[in-house]
Amino acid sequence: MQQDDPIERLIALMARMPGLGRRSARRAVLRMLMRPQETMLPLAEALAAAARAVRPCEVCGNLDARSPCQVCQDPRRDRHLICVVEGVADLWALERANAHPGLYHVLGGVLSPLGGVGPEDLSMRPLLARVEAGGVEEVILALPATVDGTATAHYVTDRLREAGVAVTRLAQGVPVGGALDVLDEGTLAAALRARRPM
Amino acid sequence: MQQDDPIERLIALMARMPGLGRRSARRAVLRMLMRPQETMLPLAEALAAAARAVRPCEVCGNLDARSPCQVCQDPRRDRHLICVVEGVADLWALERANAHPGLYHVLGGVLSPLGGVGPEDLSMRPLLARVEAGGVEEVILALPATVDGTATAHYVTDRLREAGVAVTRLAQGVPVGGALDVLDEGTLAAALRARRPM
Repeated sequence: MQQDDPIERLIALMARMPGLGRRSARRAVLRMLMRPQETMLPLAEALAAAARAVRPCEVCGNLDARSPCQVCQDPRRDRHLICVVEGVADLWALERANAHPGLYHVLGGVLSPLGGVGPEDLSMRPLLARVEAGGVEEVILALPATVDGTATAHYVTDRLREAGVAVTRLAQGVPVGGALDVLDEGTLAAALRARRPM
Repeated sequence: MQQDDPIERLIALMARMPGLGRRSARRAVLRMLMRPQETMLPLAEALAAAARAVRPCEVCGNLDARSPCQVCQDPRRDRHLICVVEGVADLWALERANAHPGLYHVLGGVLSPLGGVGPEDLSMRPLLARVEAGGVEEVILALPATVDGTATAHYVTDRLREAGVAVTRLAQGVPVGGALDVLDEGTLAAALRARRPM
């Protein structure tokens, strides 16, 4: 097959997607080529439509076809609560859990001295501005339970201290449905320290 | 998220691809949304270009942007040899192995009494026409080593008998690099029966 071949070009682009290797990409392309009008054209249009429409929300940093995003525009959300996440994937995961009634703020990363991520790389100033604008009573930190994530949580807490807002973080412990014997020691120790009365 | 949301629509279409579930589709879409101009638009264009250009080869049934396909048009291919495969995926696999110097014929399936696939569903008449047009000396059957594949091989052999062409099939045996103790008994027995002098 030649390099400028449309099939080879499509397979090469598909193989770059996370979760799809070259082998799966080839299989997916072959399957779609059986019914190109019904499979490839709608996907091409959906990709172009999303690329055209989706942008970061000017308020929270979520990715959406509207700005402010659907969450920020939703009148039923509790505007006293802001949940701070590292990235949009975490925001979407919390939305699927359907457990956070408030708004979000996408930090855009966590501090990482080794990775070259400093405070100026985080969306910290917009978060401070939202809190200082008033009405926010609690900021919930839903940052990764890693060394960098924990350091970032402390940094954000420090910066928010003067704003007079309560800062909380997600509970650590045993995952729901999780067996104890396969859990790492750090999680078990944290769950034991944070034990709750029955 | 709403049903008419461009992100949700794209995730739903991506999740239909073989090898990508809903979770991987969401992850892939999110990754692409970080750089939509560089990732989503080229993929959309490649999908549309492939859907527009690719069609079955009028000679052998391969899928290609040209008809006759690149293999059929290649002057270096041995026109005395036709390798019969079930589908385009098998043709591509043989091309990657770079082991067949001749042409192909895509049968479009194998006989399956239970699956409702009869002789009239296979591309048998075009194969007979190619052989009867002359110049073909050997037809190699590269059909799956299943009950249906073997029955189909016998059927194709019967139909080709009068055309005075040699009909062969792929050797069965131990896969290259394969350990004996994990092989199924059928393969081991076939390999033993077909043993070759050192």
